Amino acid sequence: MSSNRDIDTLIDLMARLPGLGPRSARRAVLHLIRKRGLLLSPLADSIARVAATARECVNCGNVGTADVCDICTDETRANGEICVVEDVADLWAMERAGVFKGRYHVLGGTLSAMDAIGPEELRIPRLLDRIGEETVGEVILALNATIDGMTTAHYIADQLGDGIRLTSLAQGVPIGGELDYLDDGTISAALKARRVL
Amino acid sequence: MSSNRDIDTLIDLMARLPGLGPRSARRAVLHLIRKRGLLLSPLADSIARVAATARECVNCGNVGTADVCDICTDETRANGEICVVEDVADLWAMERAGVFKGRYHVLGGTLSAMDAIGPEELRIPRLLDRIGEETVGEVILALNATIDGMTTAHYIADQLGDGIRLTSLAQGVPIGGELDYLDDGTISAALKARRVL
Repeated sequence: MSSNRDIDTLIDLMARLPGLGPRSARRAVLHLIRKRGLLLSPLADSIARVAATARECVNCGNVGTADVCDICTDETRANGEICVVEDVADLWAMERAGVFKGRYHVLGGTLSAMDAIGPEELRIPRLLDRIGEETVGEVILALNATIDGMTTAHYIADQLGDGIRLTSLAQGVPIGGELDYLDDGTISAALKARRVL
Repeated sequence: MSSNRDIDTLIDLMARLPGLGPRSARRAVLHLIRKRGLLLSPLADSIARVAATARECVNCGNVGTADVCDICTDETRANGEICVVEDVADLWAMERAGVFKGRYHVLGGTLSAMDAIGPEELRIPRLLDRIGEETVGEVILALNATIDGMTTAHYIADQLGDGIRLTSLAQGVPIGGELDYLDDGTISAALKARRVL
Protein backbone atom coordinates (compact mmCIF):
# COMPACT_ATOMS: atom_id res chain seq x y z
CA MET A 1 0.00 0.00 0.00
CA SER A 2 2.63 2.52 1.11
CA SER A 3 5.44 0.43 -0.43
CA ASN A 4 6.87 -0.06 3.08
CA ARG A 5 6.09 -2.98 5.38
CA ASP A 6 6.48 -1.20 8.74
CA ILE A 7 4.26 1.68 7.66
CA ASP A 8 1.66 -0.71 6.21
CA THR A 9 1.56 -2.63 9.51
CA LEU A 10 0.92 0.62 11.37
CA ILE A 11 -1.85 1.59 8.93
CA ASP A 12 -3.51 -1.83 9.37
CA LEU A 13 -3.45 -1.54 13.16
CA MET A 14 -4.76 2.04 13.14
CA ALA A 15 -7.57 1.01 10.80
CA ARG A 16 -8.83 -1.36 13.50
CA LEU A 17 -9.60 1.52 15.87
CA PRO A 18 -13.28 2.45 16.16
CA GLY A 19 -14.02 5.52 14.07
CA LEU A 20 -11.09 4.96 11.71
CA GLY A 21 -11.23 3.02 8.46
CA PRO A 22 -8.45 2.26 5.96
CA ARG A 23 -8.62 5.71 4.37
CA SER A 24 -8.57 7.72 7.59
CA ALA A 25 -5.89 5.40 9.02
CA ARG A 26 -3.69 6.26 6.03
CA ARG A 27 -4.32 9.97 6.55
CA ALA A 28 -3.56 9.63 10.27
CA VAL A 29 -0.31 7.73 9.68
CA LEU A 30 0.88 10.23 7.06
CA HIS A 31 0.06 13.05 9.48
CA LEU A 32 2.01 11.23 12.20
CA ILE A 33 5.04 10.77 9.97
CA ARG A 34 4.97 14.43 8.91
CA LYS A 35 4.81 15.49 12.57
CA ARG A 36 7.46 13.02 13.69
CA GLY A 37 8.94 15.07 16.50
CA LEU A 38 5.77 16.76 17.68
CA LEU A 39 3.36 13.85 17.60
CA LEU A 40 4.79 10.49 16.53
CA SER A 41 7.50 10.16 19.19
CA PRO A 42 5.31 11.39 22.08
CA LEU A 43 2.53 9.05 20.91
CA ALA A 44 4.97 6.12 20.76
CA ASP A 45 6.09 6.83 24.34
CA SER A 46 2.56 7.36 25.61
CA ILE A 47 1.13 4.25 24.00
CA ALA A 48 4.04 2.10 25.24
CA ARG A 49 3.51 3.41 28.78
CA VAL A 50 -0.23 2.68 28.68
CA ALA A 51 0.36 -0.74 27.06
CA ALA A 52 2.76 -1.65 29.86
CA THR A 53 0.63 -0.44 32.76
CA ALA A 54 -3.07 -0.21 31.84
CA ARG A 55 -5.32 -2.56 33.79
CA GLU A 56 -8.76 -2.78 35.32
CA CYS A 57 -9.21 -1.65 38.91
CA VAL A 58 -9.84 -4.81 40.98
CA ASN A 59 -12.25 -2.84 43.14
CA CYS A 60 -14.50 -0.92 40.74
CA GLY A 61 -13.57 -1.97 37.18
CA ASN A 62 -12.35 1.50 36.09
CA VAL A 63 -9.25 1.48 33.90
CA GLY A 64 -6.03 2.89 35.30
CA THR A 65 -2.36 2.14 35.63
CA ALA A 66 -2.43 0.52 39.07
CA ASP A 67 -4.26 -2.47 40.58
CA VAL A 68 -6.60 -0.09 42.41
CA CYS A 69 -7.58 3.03 40.45
CA ASP A 70 -7.00 6.65 41.47
CA ILE A 71 -10.64 7.17 42.44
CA CYS A 72 -10.75 4.10 44.71
CA THR A 73 -7.51 5.12 46.47
CA ASP A 74 -8.67 8.74 46.94
CA GLU A 75 -9.95 8.81 50.53
CA THR A 76 -11.78 12.12 49.95
CA ARG A 77 -14.13 10.23 47.62
CA ALA A 78 -15.19 7.73 50.30
CA ASN A 79 -18.37 9.73 50.97
CA GLY A 80 -20.65 6.71 51.18
CA GLU A 81 -21.99 7.05 47.62
CA ILE A 82 -21.39 4.51 44.87
CA CYS A 83 -22.44 5.35 41.31
CA VAL A 84 -23.10 2.23 39.23
CA VAL A 85 -22.34 2.58 35.51
CA GLU A 86 -22.34 0.10 32.64
CA ASP A 87 -19.05 1.03 31.10
CA VAL A 88 -15.81 2.92 31.69
CA ALA A 89 -16.89 5.45 29.04
CA ASP A 90 -19.93 6.24 31.21
CA LEU A 91 -17.66 6.72 34.24
CA TRP A 92 -15.56 9.18 32.23
CA ALA A 93 -18.72 11.01 31.12
CA MET A 94 -19.80 11.36 34.79
CA GLU A 95 -16.31 12.61 35.73
CA ARG A 96 -16.40 15.22 32.95
CA ALA A 97 -19.66 16.54 34.36
CA GLY A 98 -17.70 16.94 37.59
CA VAL A 99 -20.65 16.84 39.99
CA PHE A 100 -20.35 13.38 41.51
CA LYS A 101 -17.90 13.24 44.41
CA GLY A 102 -18.24 9.59 45.45
CA ARG A 103 -16.89 6.36 44.01
CA TYR A 104 -17.94 4.27 41.02
CA HIS A 105 -18.71 0.70 40.19
CA VAL A 106 -18.36 -0.33 36.54
CA LEU A 107 -20.56 -3.34 35.69
CA GLY A 108 -18.92 -3.99 32.34
CA GLY A 109 -22.24 -4.33 30.52
CA THR A 110 -25.87 -5.08 31.27
CA LEU A 111 -27.75 -8.28 31.99
CA SER A 112 -28.86 -9.76 28.70
CA ALA A 113 -30.71 -13.02 28.18
CA MET A 114 -30.03 -12.75 24.44
CA ASP A 115 -26.25 -12.57 24.90
CA ALA A 116 -26.25 -14.95 27.89
CA ILE A 117 -24.81 -12.29 30.21
CA GLY A 118 -25.73 -13.02 33.83
CA PRO A 119 -24.80 -11.32 37.12
CA GLU A 120 -21.52 -13.27 37.40
CA GLU A 121 -20.28 -11.77 34.11
CA LEU A 122 -21.09 -8.27 35.32
CA ARG A 123 -19.18 -7.55 38.50
CA ILE A 124 -22.52 -7.49 40.39
CA PRO A 125 -21.27 -9.88 43.14
CA ARG A 126 -18.32 -7.51 43.69
CA LEU A 127 -20.79 -4.60 44.05
CA LEU A 128 -22.64 -6.48 46.80
CA ASP A 129 -19.29 -7.27 48.50
CA ARG A 130 -18.30 -3.60 48.40
CA ILE A 131 -21.54 -2.55 50.07
CA GLY A 132 -20.54 -4.85 52.91
CA GLU A 133 -16.90 -3.73 53.02
CA GLU A 134 -17.14 0.03 52.49
CA THR A 135 -19.52 2.25 54.44
CA VAL A 136 -22.04 2.80 51.66
CA GLY A 137 -25.11 4.94 52.34
CA GLU A 138 -26.43 5.34 48.79
CA VAL A 139 -26.16 3.47 45.50
CA ILE A 140 -26.89 5.65 42.47
CA LEU A 141 -27.78 3.75 39.30
CA ALA A 142 -26.52 5.64 36.24
CA LEU A 143 -27.39 2.95 33.70
CA ASN A 144 -28.46 3.64 30.15
CA ALA A 145 -32.22 4.04 29.68
CA THR A 146 -32.47 0.92 27.52
CA ILE A 147 -34.43 -2.29 28.15
CA ASP A 148 -31.28 -4.13 29.26
CA GLY A 149 -30.23 -1.19 31.42
CA MET A 150 -33.58 -1.14 33.17
CA THR A 151 -33.57 -4.94 33.63
CA THR A 152 -30.17 -4.64 35.28
CA ALA A 153 -31.39 -1.82 37.52
CA HIS A 154 -34.32 -3.97 38.70
CA TYR A 155 -32.04 -6.92 39.39
CA ILE A 156 -29.63 -4.77 41.44
CA ALA A 157 -32.56 -3.27 43.38
CA ASP A 158 -33.74 -6.82 44.23
CA GLN A 159 -30.28 -7.87 45.39
CA LEU A 160 -29.66 -4.80 47.55
CA GLY A 161 -32.82 -5.17 49.63
CA ASP A 162 -34.21 -2.44 51.86
CA GLY A 163 -31.22 -1.56 54.05
CA ILE A 164 -29.70 0.88 51.58
CA ARG A 165 -30.84 4.03 49.74
CA LEU A 166 -31.05 3.26 46.01
CA THR A 167 -31.53 6.06 43.48
CA SER A 168 -31.26 6.49 39.74
CA LEU A 169 -30.54 9.41 37.43
CA ALA A 170 -33.58 11.57 36.66
CA GLN A 171 -35.18 11.19 33.26
CA GLY A 172 -36.52 14.16 31.34
CA VAL A 173 -35.76 16.81 28.76
CA PRO A 174 -31.99 17.23 28.19
CA ILE A 175 -30.53 20.71 28.76
CA GLY A 176 -30.76 22.56 25.44
CA GLY A 177 -33.17 19.93 24.12
CA GLU A 178 -36.03 20.98 21.88
CA LEU A 179 -39.37 19.28 22.51
CA ASP A 180 -40.01 19.01 18.79
CA TYR A 181 -37.00 16.70 18.39
CA LEU A 182 -37.60 14.52 21.48
CA ASP A 183 -39.19 11.08 21.34
CA ASP A 184 -42.58 10.39 22.94
CA GLY A 185 -41.09 8.29 25.76
CA THR A 186 -38.86 11.12 26.97
CA ILE A 187 -41.66 13.70 26.86
CA SER A 188 -43.94 11.28 28.72
CA ALA A 189 -41.27 10.63 31.39
CA ALA A 190 -40.58 14.36 31.75
CA LEU A 191 -44.28 15.13 32.20
CA LYS A 192 -44.76 12.39 34.81
CA ALA A 193 -41.74 13.62 36.78
CA ARG A 194 -42.72 17.33 36.50
CA ARG A 195 -41.60 19.61 39.29
CA VAL A 196 -43.32 22.43 41.15
CA LEU A 197 -41.44 25.67 40.44
CA MET B 1 -10.95 13.15 32.25
CA SER B 2 -10.25 9.43 32.76
CA SER B 3 -8.96 10.04 36.31
CA ASN B 4 -5.54 8.80 35.15
CA ARG B 5 -2.74 10.99 33.84
CA ASP B 6 -1.10 8.48 31.47
CA ILE B 7 -4.40 7.60 29.84
CA ASP B 8 -5.39 11.28 29.56
CA THR B 9 -2.09 12.03 27.82
CA LEU B 10 -2.75 9.26 25.32
CA ILE B 11 -6.28 10.55 24.68
CA ASP B 12 -4.95 14.09 24.11
CA LEU B 13 -2.37 12.84 21.60
CA MET B 14 -4.88 10.63 19.76
CA ALA B 15 -7.32 13.55 19.54
CA ARG B 16 -4.72 15.44 17.48
CA LEU B 17 -4.90 12.92 14.64
CA PRO B 18 -6.90 14.02 11.60
CA GLY B 19 -10.35 12.45 11.65
CA LEU B 20 -10.38 11.98 15.43
CA GLY B 21 -11.74 14.45 17.96
CA PRO B 22 -11.83 14.25 21.76
CA ARG B 23 -14.85 11.93 21.79
CA SER B 24 -13.59 9.46 19.20
CA ALA B 25 -10.10 9.57 20.77
CA ARG B 26 -11.65 8.49 24.09
CA ARG B 27 -13.52 5.67 22.35
CA ALA B 28 -10.36 4.59 20.54
CA VAL B 29 -8.26 4.58 23.72
CA LEU B 30 -10.88 2.59 25.65
CA HIS B 31 -11.03 0.11 22.77
CA LEU B 32 -7.23 -0.15 22.83
CA ILE B 33 -7.16 -0.79 26.57
CA ARG B 34 -9.86 -3.45 26.28
CA LYS B 35 -7.89 -5.16 23.50
CA ARG B 36 -4.56 -4.83 25.26
CA GLY B 37 -2.96 -8.03 23.97
CA LEU B 38 -4.48 -8.01 20.50
CA LEU B 39 -4.15 -4.36 19.60
CA LEU B 40 -2.46 -2.10 22.17
CA SER B 41 0.86 -3.94 22.45
CA PRO B 42 1.25 -4.53 18.68
CA LEU B 43 0.35 -0.87 18.07
CA ALA B 44 2.91 0.25 20.65
CA ASP B 45 5.62 -1.82 18.93
CA SER B 46 4.60 -0.71 15.45
CA ILE B 47 4.43 2.97 16.28
CA ALA B 48 7.78 2.86 18.09
CA ARG B 49 9.37 1.19 15.07
CA VAL B 50 7.95 3.78 12.66
CA ALA B 51 8.85 6.64 15.02
CA ALA B 52 12.45 5.42 15.13
CA THR B 53 12.90 4.80 11.40
CA ALA B 54 10.41 6.81 9.31
CA ARG B 55 11.98 9.38 7.03
CA GLU B 56 11.62 10.99 3.62
CA CYS B 57 13.37 9.38 0.67
CA VAL B 58 16.22 11.73 -0.32
CA ASN B 59 15.61 10.87 -3.96
CA CYS B 60 11.84 11.12 -4.49
CA GLY B 61 10.27 12.40 -1.23
CA ASN B 62 8.23 9.23 -0.52
CA VAL B 63 8.14 8.17 3.13
CA GLY B 64 9.87 4.98 4.14
CA THR B 65 12.20 3.55 6.73
CA ALA B 66 15.48 4.01 4.83
CA ASP B 67 17.28 7.01 3.32
CA VAL B 68 16.25 5.85 -0.15
CA CYS B 69 12.75 4.35 -0.38
CA ASP B 70 11.84 0.83 -1.55
CA ILE B 71 10.57 2.08 -4.91
CA CYS B 72 13.75 4.04 -5.68
CA THR B 73 15.96 1.06 -4.77
CA ASP B 74 13.85 -1.38 -6.84
CA GLU B 75 15.78 -1.69 -10.13
CA THR B 76 12.77 -3.27 -11.89
CA ARG B 77 11.03 0.10 -11.56
CA ALA B 78 13.76 1.99 -13.41
CA ASN B 79 11.71 1.87 -16.64
CA GLY B 80 12.40 5.46 -17.62
CA GLU B 81 9.06 6.80 -16.36
CA ILE B 82 8.72 9.27 -13.48
CA CYS B 83 5.27 10.06 -12.12
CA VAL B 84 5.13 13.47 -10.44
CA VAL B 85 2.63 13.76 -7.55
CA GLU B 86 1.90 16.51 -5.05
CA ASP B 87 1.84 14.42 -1.93
CA VAL B 88 2.77 11.01 -0.48
CA ALA B 89 -0.96 10.23 -0.16
CA ASP B 90 -1.23 10.63 -3.95
CA LEU B 91 1.71 8.25 -4.43
CA TRP B 92 -0.04 5.68 -2.24
CA ALA B 93 -3.26 6.13 -4.25
CA MET B 94 -1.33 5.48 -7.49
CA GLU B 95 0.30 2.39 -5.95
CA ARG B 96 -3.10 1.02 -4.86
CA ALA B 97 -4.31 1.30 -8.45
CA GLY B 98 -1.30 -0.89 -9.25
CA VAL B 99 -0.92 0.13 -12.89
CA PHE B 100 2.13 2.38 -12.79
CA LYS B 101 5.40 0.45 -12.89
CA GLY B 102 7.91 3.32 -12.89
CA ARG B 103 9.21 5.62 -10.16
CA TYR B 104 7.71 8.65 -8.45
CA HIS B 105 8.66 12.16 -7.55
CA VAL B 106 6.76 13.75 -4.65
CA LEU B 107 6.72 17.56 -4.91
CA GLY B 108 5.43 18.09 -1.37
CA GLY B 109 2.76 20.60 -2.46
CA THR B 110 2.04 22.93 -5.36
CA LEU B 111 3.34 26.31 -6.37
CA SER B 112 1.27 28.94 -4.64
CA ALA B 113 1.74 32.69 -4.82
CA MET B 114 -0.74 33.10 -1.94
CA ASP B 115 1.24 30.85 0.40
CA ALA B 116 4.62 32.00 -0.95
CA ILE B 117 5.55 28.49 -2.10
CA GLY B 118 8.09 28.62 -4.93
CA PRO B 119 9.96 25.90 -6.85
CA GLU B 120 12.71 25.69 -4.19
CA GLU B 121 10.16 24.66 -1.54
CA LEU B 122 8.81 21.93 -3.77
CA ARG B 123 11.60 19.53 -4.69
CA ILE B 124 11.34 20.74 -8.31
CA PRO B 125 15.13 21.32 -8.61
CA ARG B 126 15.64 17.71 -7.47
CA LEU B 127 13.22 16.55 -10.21
CA LEU B 128 15.33 18.34 -12.84
CA ASP B 129 18.50 16.76 -11.37
CA ARG B 130 16.94 13.30 -11.52
CA ILE B 131 16.08 13.71 -15.18
CA GLY B 132 19.77 14.30 -15.78
CA GLU B 133 20.96 11.46 -13.51
CA GLU B 134 18.49 8.70 -14.30
CA THR B 135 17.59 7.62 -17.84
CA VAL B 136 14.17 9.23 -17.96
CA GLY B 137 12.09 8.93 -21.13
CA GLU B 138 8.74 10.23 -19.85
CA VAL B 139 7.52 12.45 -17.04
CA ILE B 140 3.87 11.86 -16.15
CA LEU B 141 2.22 14.68 -14.22
CA ALA B 142 -0.38 13.29 -11.78
CA LEU B 143 -1.17 16.58 -10.08
CA ASN B 144 -4.56 17.50 -8.69
CA ALA B 145 -6.85 19.26 -11.15
CA THR B 146 -6.84 22.49 -9.15
CA ILE B 147 -5.62 25.95 -10.15
CA ASP B 148 -2.40 25.51 -8.16
CA GLY B 149 -1.93 22.01 -9.55
CA MET B 150 -2.25 23.29 -13.12
CA THR B 151 0.08 26.23 -12.44
CA THR B 152 2.66 23.78 -11.16
CA ALA B 153 2.20 21.55 -14.21
CA HIS B 154 2.82 24.52 -16.53
CA TYR B 155 5.92 25.54 -14.58
CA ILE B 156 7.36 22.01 -14.76
CA ALA B 157 6.58 21.84 -18.50
CA ASP B 158 8.52 25.10 -19.00
CA GLN B 159 11.50 23.83 -17.02
CA LEU B 160 11.71 20.46 -18.77
CA GLY B 161 11.90 21.88 -22.27
CA ASP B 162 11.43 19.84 -25.41
CA GLY B 163 13.91 16.97 -24.93
CA ILE B 164 11.56 14.86 -22.87
CA ARG B 165 8.07 13.38 -23.29
CA LEU B 166 5.73 15.06 -20.82
CA THR B 167 2.21 13.70 -20.21
CA SER B 168 -0.55 14.17 -17.67
CA LEU B 169 -3.40 12.01 -16.40
CA ALA B 170 -6.49 12.05 -18.60
CA GLN B 171 -9.46 14.08 -17.44
CA GLY B 172 -13.02 12.83 -17.89
CA VAL B 173 -15.90 10.96 -16.32
CA PRO B 174 -14.75 8.79 -13.37
CA ILE B 175 -15.52 5.04 -13.57
CA GLY B 176 -18.97 4.52 -12.04
CA GLY B 177 -19.62 8.27 -12.23
CA GLU B 178 -23.10 9.49 -13.08
CA LEU B 179 -23.31 12.46 -15.43
CA ASP B 180 -26.09 13.99 -13.39
CA TYR B 181 -23.76 14.39 -10.41
CA LEU B 182 -20.72 15.66 -12.30
CA ASP B 183 -19.72 19.31 -12.45
CA ASP B 184 -19.79 21.23 -15.74
CA GLY B 185 -16.00 21.42 -15.97
CA THR B 186 -15.60 17.65 -15.91
CA ILE B 187 -18.33 17.08 -18.50
CA SER B 188 -16.81 19.75 -20.70
CA ALA B 189 -13.32 18.17 -20.39
CA ALA B 190 -14.71 14.69 -21.09
CA LEU B 191 -16.52 15.90 -24.21
CA LYS B 192 -13.46 17.71 -25.56
CA ALA B 193 -11.30 14.59 -25.03
CA ARG B 194 -13.91 12.19 -26.46
CA ARG B 195 -12.60 9.01 -28.07
CA VAL B 196 -13.56 7.18 -31.24
CA LEU B 197 -14.92 3.75 -30.26
